Amino acid sequence: MTKVTAQMSVSLDGFYTGPRDPQHPEDMSGWMSGPEAPGFFRVSRWVVDAMAWRERQGFAGGEQSVNSEIVKETFAAAGAYVMGRRMFDAGEVPWGEEPPFHAPVFVVTHRGREVLERRGGTTFTFVTEGLERAIELARVAAGGKDVQVAGGGELVRQVLAAGLLEQLELHIAPVLLGDGQRLFDPSLGLGADDGIELIPTRIVEAPDVTHLRYAVIGRSKLVLDDRGASGELVGQARSED
Amino acid sequence: MTKVTAQMSVSLDGFYTGPRDPQHPEDMSGWMSGPEAPGFFRVSRWVVDAMAWRERQGFAGGEQSVNSEIVKETFAAAGAYVMGRRMFDAGEVPWGEEPPFHAPVFVVTHRGREVLERRGGTTFTFVTEGLERAIELARVAAGGKDVQVAGGGELVRQVLAAGLLEQLELHIAPVLLGDGQRLFDPSLGLGADDGIELIPTRIVEAPDVTHLRYAVIGRSKLVLDDRGASGELVGQARSED
Repeated sequence: MTKVTAQMSVSLDGFYTGPRDPQHPEDMSGWMSGPEAPGFFRVSRWVVDAMAWRERQGFAGGEQSVNSEIVKETFAAAGAYVMGRRMFDAGEVPWGEEPPFHAPVFVVTHRGREVLERRGGTTFTFVTEGLERAIELARVAAGGKDVQVAGGGELVRQVLAAGLLEQLELHIAPVLLGDGQRLFDPSLGLGADDGIELIPTRIVEAPDVTHLRYAVIGRSKLVLDDRGASGELVGQARSED
Repeated sequence: MTKVTAQMSVSLDGFYTGPRDPQHPEDMSGWMSGPEAPGFFRVSRWVVDAMAWRERQGFAGGEQSVNSEIVKETFAAAGAYVMGRRMFDAGEVPWGEEPPFHAPVFVVTHRGREVLERRGGTTFTFVTEGLERAIELARVAAGGKDVQVAGGGELVRQVLAAGLLEQLELHIAPVLLGDGQRLFDPSLGLGADDGIELIPTRIVEAPDVTHLRYAVIGRSKLVLDDRGASGELVGQARSED
């Protein structure tokens, strides 16, 4: 059954790139030489080294590894993608004539544009009616496979905040970056009494990255429950269990 | 051999408490009823439920579980502690006559004070000569066991930034808080080209928390290495491997 999923490579402190260039925050053309790039390359190194990713991009080499299996599985699970406009703009040229998606991609944008057909089964459809509509269209197009939120981080947060994300997988690179673009930030819109609860469903260990997969349960109130740490009451209740 | 370790319970988005009260950022007395508390109780729930933690605090009940084993092991590994002043201030009263440390604790502070002796083997020594001196004293006191950085988060960051932390364990609660006090932030002082590299050394899974342990390798330059993703050159180099 189709579910809405997202997966992202992040540092242990939660960054998916280095910091944006304060001089050119919207300059996508040069981002690979800007301050975002070193952190991005570091957290995504495990992907680029994986044979399954290199094959999909048409690059030689790569490692046959548990990481490569995860890349393969991730591509295979996606029946359609939802993508943010900024990510599309950054990718359009480097992805070239045969982008790696091989599936319909729905780009959430304010600027309408004709459907873009690429080789290998990738189509980009530009959706100006908002995120929920893009997910709706992707669900139909996914043919029973998953709808993957391709990114960027802002779109992942929006899907989470809207309560539409069902599975989240973080690929945690063993590095601290200290600063950069965070996958999660206060734009999730949670108050001090709210959290989004998850359940860990799969952990895969590799020497160079840890893959943590969660089912997203949803927003719920945090309770001031100290589990009896401040008195006898709960201890007593427990002894009656 | 003595190593300097830290372990901390955090949300999946890296918070160890909810947000500080902007009205009373330094008011420790009331923090358990302020906005920091719901997030703190959520991320540390697995500890408070663990039998080994409850025993150490003198509370009844608790679960005999893999989490309890980790609490037990964490207490057992510590020969001495280093602690921040804010954490000491918050704990002094609630820890009572028999604090849970049962070992020498070195509090990094600007205010000198007599050594405080408590029951169960806990002593608090107030070190005004800085963090490195506190760690040095704790190393001597640890008798071959580990020096644990007890917290808070700011002290953990300082020890990391100073290159003095050798092992980091994060207990990741499956929840997103969106906002709060982050264990890692830009005060680590890393530039866009720098990272602190780690190696995952142990992962323990439980339904309600994921324990990730790392060896801290240290600060190193991030490289703009796209592993051949942008051209033939590296692909060629690889084919010569």
